Amino acid sequence: MINFQDKFAQFSDHWSPKVIAEMNDIQFKLVKLKGEFVWHQHDHTDEVFLVIGGAMCIEYADKKVHLRAGEMHVVPKGVSHKPMAEHECKVMLVEPRGVVNTGDTPGDLTAPNDVWI
Amino acid sequence: MINFQDKFAQFSDHWSPKVIAEMNDIQFKLVKLKGEFVWHQHDHTDEVFLVIGGAMCIEYADKKVHLRAGEMHVVPKGVSHKPMAEHECKVMLVEPRGVVNTGDTPGDLTAPNDVWI
Repeated sequence: MINFQDKFAQFSDHWSPKVIAEMNDIQFKLVKLKGEFVWHQHDHTDEVFLVIGGAMCIEYADKKVHLRAGEMHVVPKGVSHKPMAEHECKVMLVEPRGVVNTGDTPGDLTAPNDVWI
Repeated sequence: MINFQDKFAQFSDHWSPKVIAEMNDIQFKLVKLKGEFVWHQHDHTDEVFLVIGGAMCIEYADKKVHLRAGEMHVVPKGVSHKPMAEHECKVMLVEPRGVVNTGDTPGDLTAPNDVWI
């Protein structure tokens, strides 16, 4: 059994997803967001954002999707987006094993993969 | 944006999963559980139970996994299990498209697939 509150208590860094479970080749990752991320896209997969605590926003070229606890959104494959959160937001990501957080835009915010907690 | 509370308000039957989102070939389904399900297994895939409201239990041959809101569990591929909930429990299932709820044990509780809300 995996308890989200217990897992979130184990880290404090932002924009650095931690793997908590795998279903086949799909990973479930927890991440704390604060501030603005970088524009990027994932060319080979959709990506799920599920908000567990707080509120965040996913900006697209033509719209913003606002999410709060108890809400989820699927970012379509190959579509450029920028996550942001004014205050710290607790999120679960669901995506295939091997997806890098910054997609096609590596840089300072690129996090190591497969860090389990 | 998908709001779990809004989606759960749209149905009242038990043990009949409704699809709310897809990520690649993976489906996210909401289901209300109450009472005892049937022993069954899924021979070709793991299955995620994520509890959104209430409490439930997944019984295995040798143990019981208790889950409440804010907790998740991955049922391994090919392992027989029986979900149950004393009181109504609101759950999100994550599993590949095409998975039948009763797995290898079709019967009265087998629900139609691909019912979107």
